[in-house]
Amino acid sequence: MRPLLLDDDRALPADPATRSVAREVYHATRDLPLVCMHGHVDAGVLAQDRSFPDPAGLFVVPDHYLLRMLVSQGAELRDLGVAAGDGPVETDPRVIWRRFCAGWHLFRGTPTRYWLEHGLHEIFEVTVQPGEDTADELYEHIAERLAKPEFRPRALFERFGIEVLATTDSPLSTLPDHAVLREQGWGDKVVPTFRPDALLHLDRPTWTADVDQLAELTGIDTGSYAGFTDALRARRRAFVEAGAMATDHGHLATDTTPLSAAEAARVYAAARAGHIEPADAAAFAGHMLHEMARMSCEDGLVMQVHPGVLRDHDPAVHALHGPDQGFDIPVPTEFTRALRPLLESFGRDPRFRLVVFTVDETTYSRELAPLAGVYPAMRLGAPWWFLDTPDGMRRFREAVTDTAGFYNTTGFVDDTRAFLSIPARHDLARRVDAGHLARLVAEHRLGLDEALETAVDLAYNLPKESYARR
Amino acid sequence: MRPLLLDDDRALPADPATRSVAREVYHATRDLPLVCMHGHVDAGVLAQDRSFPDPAGLFVVPDHYLLRMLVSQGAELRDLGVAAGDGPVETDPRVIWRRFCAGWHLFRGTPTRYWLEHGLHEIFEVTVQPGEDTADELYEHIAERLAKPEFRPRALFERFGIEVLATTDSPLSTLPDHAVLREQGWGDKVVPTFRPDALLHLDRPTWTADVDQLAELTGIDTGSYAGFTDALRARRRAFVEAGAMATDHGHLATDTTPLSAAEAARVYAAARAGHIEPADAAAFAGHMLHEMARMSCEDGLVMQVHPGVLRDHDPAVHALHGPDQGFDIPVPTEFTRALRPLLESFGRDPRFRLVVFTVDETTYSRELAPLAGVYPAMRLGAPWWFLDTPDGMRRFREAVTDTAGFYNTTGFVDDTRAFLSIPARHDLARRVDAGHLARLVAEHRLGLDEALETAVDLAYNLPKESYARR
Amino acid sequence: MRPLLLDDDRALPADPATRSVAREVYHATRDLPLVCMHGHVDAGVLAQDRSFPDPAGLFVVPDHYLLRMLVSQGAELRDLGVAAGDGPVETDPRVIWRRFCAGWHLFRGTPTRYWLEHGLHEIFEVTVQPGEDTADELYEHIAERLAKPEFRPRALFERFGIEVLATTDSPLSTLPDHAVLREQGWGDKVVPTFRPDALLHLDRPTWTADVDQLAELTGIDTGSYAGFTDALRARRRAFVEAGAMATDHGHLATDTTPLSAAEAARVYAAARAGHIEPADAAAFAGHMLHEMARMSCEDGLVMQVHPGVLRDHDPAVHALHGPDQGFDIPVPTEFTRALRPLLESFGRDPRFRLVVFTVDETTYSRELAPLAGVYPAMRLGAPWWFLDTPDGMRRFREAVTDTAGFYNTTGFVDDTRAFLSIPARHDLARRVDAGHLARLVAEHRLGLDEALETAVDLAYNLPKESYARR
Repeated sequence: MRPLLLDDDRALPADPATRSVAREVYHATRDLPLVCMHGHVDAGVLAQDRSFPDPAGLFVVPDHYLLRMLVSQGAELRDLGVAAGDGPVETDPRVIWRRFCAGWHLFRGTPTRYWLEHGLHEIFEVTVQPGEDTADELYEHIAERLAKPEFRPRALFERFGIEVLATTDSPLSTLPDHAVLREQGWGDKVVPTFRPDALLHLDRPTWTADVDQLAELTGIDTGSYAGFTDALRARRRAFVEAGAMATDHGHLATDTTPLSAAEAARVYAAARAGHIEPADAAAFAGHMLHEMARMSCEDGLVMQVHPGVLRDHDPAVHALHGPDQGFDIPVPTEFTRALRPLLESFGRDPRFRLVVFTVDETTYSRELAPLAGVYPAMRLGAPWWFLDTPDGMRRFREAVTDTAGFYNTTGFVDDTRAFLSIPARHDLARRVDAGHLARLVAEHRLGLDEALETAVDLAYNLPKESYARR
Repeated sequence: MRPLLLDDDRALPADPATRSVAREVYHATRDLPLVCMHGHVDAGVLAQDRSFPDPAGLFVVPDHYLLRMLVSQGAELRDLGVAAGDGPVETDPRVIWRRFCAGWHLFRGTPTRYWLEHGLHEIFEVTVQPGEDTADELYEHIAERLAKPEFRPRALFERFGIEVLATTDSPLSTLPDHAVLREQGWGDKVVPTFRPDALLHLDRPTWTADVDQLAELTGIDTGSYAGFTDALRARRRAFVEAGAMATDHGHLATDTTPLSAAEAARVYAAARAGHIEPADAAAFAGHMLHEMARMSCEDGLVMQVHPGVLRDHDPAVHALHGPDQGFDIPVPTEFTRALRPLLESFGRDPRFRLVVFTVDETTYSRELAPLAGVYPAMRLGAPWWFLDTPDGMRRFREAVTDTAGFYNTTGFVDDTRAFLSIPARHDLARRVDAGHLARLVAEHRLGLDEALETAVDLAYNLPKESYARR
Repeated sequence: MRPLLLDDDRALPADPATRSVAREVYHATRDLPLVCMHGHVDAGVLAQDRSFPDPAGLFVVPDHYLLRMLVSQGAELRDLGVAAGDGPVETDPRVIWRRFCAGWHLFRGTPTRYWLEHGLHEIFEVTVQPGEDTADELYEHIAERLAKPEFRPRALFERFGIEVLATTDSPLSTLPDHAVLREQGWGDKVVPTFRPDALLHLDRPTWTADVDQLAELTGIDTGSYAGFTDALRARRRAFVEAGAMATDHGHLATDTTPLSAAEAARVYAAARAGHIEPADAAAFAGHMLHEMARMSCEDGLVMQVHPGVLRDHDPAVHALHGPDQGFDIPVPTEFTRALRPLLESFGRDPRFRLVVFTVDETTYSRELAPLAGVYPAMRLGAPWWFLDTPDGMRRFREAVTDTAGFYNTTGFVDDTRAFLSIPARHDLARRVDAGHLARLVAEHRLGLDEALETAVDLAYNLPKESYARR
């Protein structure tokens, strides 16, 4: 049995001189409230505030980071409890939990391990590492606590110190969970985010049905391009009224070239008539990013872009198990030319805020920092997904700060589906930023007082300010 | 008020064991003369040797690094004193200076901050950091010194310990300032560089007028391609006679594919007749890089290439304020295939020297170090522009040395427009190289005596030798 | 004269706290046997077990790392003893050795220097650094030892602690040296690897002759595509029978798109008839990678891919001196889309193992770790060629572990042509991995006991398991 302990100095630089500064910087931020401006937690979890299910259903089955690592070493998704279109699935949570525990060594050196350790120890007071020998003991230990009222979602939300949490929502959602939360006084704590990808990609199989539903929902005829954009504006207004601060856009490419009104109308009409060329669909998606920026200038919603991920790399996995099962893989992403039309139009407009994320870290020093370091509308989001790691965050600061400084970044954005990982992720980001700032202090490139101030800005003030509706 | 102090150990590694070695290595280079083989200081400043203007005109208005950071947080270029085509501009240098000082925190962690601190403290004996509270005091302090003779350009040149400074000049310049300097015994200290970009890009709006002027200046008919290249040769000769050591080429792409003589003549003739296809213009530019290499073999001028920057990303800014206002953004750059024709032709020619720079650091280990590590003509220039930073220089050495060693790099090249930043930039490069060498010593990968020798080579001998006319 | 000493702590992190942990981790692996699953040592060297030639013929002439560095500073290959098609070549090994020693400073900071120091000191007990002043003394010192029986290849093989060494072989080889070794009880120690590049690229000048020889060797008519693939299967079987564990594929692009059977047959037939379009040849090469994966599922050979190197960048050098003279340069490489067809077909097949290498480190965090972190068939090979360096290996672990963990990598693969560098390369990799693991321990991200276990896995268990025929 291996003990599970969290050292106070974890994830701080090893060099003693730097570490002592880092500790001081980290302490200035460790107890600040959590500002969670982008993530994928289901608002229903908080609206209903039911107890979480068993340990496997909480930690294993819904977490694609964890599933993909087990799959990479030969596990089958069905044996980990993931629904499959073609046959039986493991339903015993104890069996699933044991399979996870038996693969614990696979996570050595990964952020998943780091987040899980934090959650297990800090939230559930677990003191031994998962393993074949401890699986059943841990299961009981966690299950027992999950049954208690202080482990229900809202209690944990308060315990975590979350000040605000933004969910990500379908543009066709009427946001009923958010309405419930608002009625119960949680309207400022949980806000929706407008994510219209499905409507902007003409070639999605659901597109026609979605646009029909858009018409029904808004009472606006979406038979023409003009009606379509009016209906989108209406839905954005509904989100603003429900408290939304931002939109989010998950396009494969970053192209933002506007079409002429006539060309947009032609492509749209053809799509409504069932004729969609791939090149037209791609051009329309790029055009709509440009139009979303225009609408952000009008309604003040901060625009987030999360580009460059090829979803469902293995289509057979998608066919069997659906999306978000760990088979999403980054591709090289280009920003300088692709964002140029959008930035030309709106990059210096004081009504506009654009937050850009990437999983292609080669763009940090070459494109993203130079762009964010001059266009006032643009901020760099936190290192995303495969880069939301101790070394990934360090490389981000080292590559970006030279040209963009700290104040053209948003500070930390957790972007998690795993509610229980929220405090671990914020805590880790604060530690890594503390380590970076401490190195600047130790190398006499920054005063300690400035480092302390900057750390607080990165942890708290910059996320709030970057995502303030304009 | 925050003190502005320069620690003796600044920018050296924090780990005490490595730092003490780094200090020793740095001390071997700190007082060596400055060899400034590429930059954008105006020769007229030294030829006329007039007092610098006020602090804003010296530090703020002409420095695109500084302007872009202030713009990125909402400042307008016109409010910082940058001439605008459409209306009034701030003319009070005190107001501009205050605006800069109020944004001082934006520069935390940036090289701009580092260079400014060095300049303010070492040159002007400033001991408090800029800020809203100190802006006026600092203004007075600096302005008072600027009026003194020992703060005039030539006095500072001597005080900085500059041995030689290469300017960058239009191929159509008759180099009158250099002539003045030569007459006054400064001919070895300030030399021109031949930068013919405007003549090699058929699609520049000024091209026809420039080629006409080229004919006038040289007395060679530029009506044909043959005349054009003869005239270029003549101008290169004039630069050699004026002391030039090198040419410089700022192309967007790195292509160096030669055209056949007939094709080059055809494209040239069409351009003279006013017919320019974008593809032809790009091909001609690539062809001319190849021809410039040929001419370097003939006249011994070292050939510098600075590729991969998309200039004037926001055309509206260019239209209002002109070039070099901080809106130049890098693009991905390819070298292996693009430089192949040039290197095939001249890469092993002992008469040829090629110095390559990049703002795309992904090419360091993949393309540039492998190329420079085998072709005798090729050397890697210092980390350029957005990469001329403490961490950028460290990453350069870590990525490049494995394959290119130290002796296929040029050592430090400052490439600055800001005369006052020259000593800061050299000092910082010496510190960072000392840190890199110290790590090799501390990891027992290099002897201390070898590190000391290498440091001196990087700081002094390699720039001199790399840029020696061949 | 500079002493040549190997510090016990060389290549371990400089920070004392991390170093002491690194030392402990390294000690757990330093004496483990060497598992050499991919390299380019000639089996004949071991089959014949003759004494090595003189120091120049052993260290200088066959080592492209070393040649390229000397060439980059003006040496001519012919003056270093490399055969040339057009005239005399230096034949005096003492002269060649002196030229190498005179360039010793060029290798400062390079892995070549590190490997050479290790080999000179550990194998030959050299205690002074090469240099002009020591060249002759070193030559005598080494030559004297080379004459002794304990410096013959098999004696060194045993002394190095090599457990198994995989060579790389032509698909047309009858593997006579391996047969000799097998007869003498060395069959488990030296195994062949099937490298069919020449047969899969229709546009190689030797292709027709090679395919004719393939028919002769297998007795299968290669006049049709079906016969061609049958003959390839037969040759793979012969390699399996000779002990092969793996295939190896050195394609420029990573494309793995299968052609239809009809299209493959058409392209093949056209090529046999002498009609080869470049696009067809490229498509056929991609198709054959896909088919090689299919055959690996059948016969259990592990499939290695080494893509993205443009061979013989300067064709004049190739024409004069042949391949592998240091003029091979990486190009940007794409994996996410290129490997998709192969991974769709075989990426979750338990009979399949794919090991991917790259010289484009930008793909580590963006493509390779995400792919290897989910597809069970795929593992990441060790940092290759220009990246097989202390800092290259460190960057690999830092970029890859977050998403792929340690257990989706193969551990160390030496990939060397230089037999004497094998122990140095393994030792260095063990040191660098120890440093990486020690940092995780020092940052409280991993327990020391886990670090020790992981280090042994990376040094010994993972290479064995990754290359086990399936």
